Amino acid sequence: MKRTHMKSINLKEKYDHVNDFWHPHQIGIVDNMQVLLAKIKGEFVWHSHENEDELFQVVKGTLYMQFRDRTEVVQQGEIIIVPKGVEHCPMTKNDEVVQLMLFEKLSTAHTGNVKDEKTQTDYPKI
Amino acid sequence: MKRTHMKSINLKEKYDHVNDFWHPHQIGIVDNMQVLLAKIKGEFVWHSHENEDELFQVVKGTLYMQFRDRTEVVQQGEIIIVPKGVEHCPMTKNDEVVQLMLFEKLSTAHTGNVKDEKTQTDYPKI
Repeated sequence: MKRTHMKSINLKEKYDHVNDFWHPHQIGIVDNMQVLLAKIKGEFVWHSHENEDELFQVVKGTLYMQFRDRTEVVQQGEIIIVPKGVEHCPMTKNDEVVQLMLFEKLSTAHTGNVKDEKTQTDYPKI
Repeated sequence: MKRTHMKSINLKEKYDHVNDFWHPHQIGIVDNMQVLLAKIKGEFVWHSHENEDELFQVVKGTLYMQFRDRTEVVQQGEIIIVPKGVEHCPMTKNDEVVQLMLFEKLSTAHTGNVKDEKTQTDYPKI
């Protein structure tokens, strides 16, 4: 698919191309950062990123961002920034499919410091 | 105001602190990039950024992103990425107040290569 430089990017249309859970798809690049879309359901993997912050925006649904000492509820339209080095584990409740947009460095590994069956190394460009 | 690390950031609440048009306010930092909120109305200033890409997300309203050869309409919920070096001039129609979220390098100058009465050098942290 042709990249969308200087074109409006409609998130709803882009999400139609995202079929797997926990598999980010890249919709754009801003300097050294990438913009990713993901659909998530259930619980991810506890991990941290040694050198990268991560921004999550909830496009649809409710995200429960678990930290070791508490869980932060992130509602539709809200964002949360997870600083480098902080262990986190995204989760949804009641099998809700939650749509996320992420901003992070191009170098950011999917599950950071851990390797898991959920770990993705290829982010399709849509 | 205390920064919102690892806390949900509610854009609607943050916009209550943005009173001037064309004056970005910083709501977060992701590595070398900043997340800005702005309310805009009318026409901005033609400019480009030599070394920085810029991402705009329309949180409310309709953005008309003018390029020299065409105008791209960016609806609520959509995003557009303006690559470095490309002249652009954001605009709204019919005096609509449009709410934007921007994602760009910390080093990005407000009006890029030009200086104008609209140029802001200080982005309040909210």
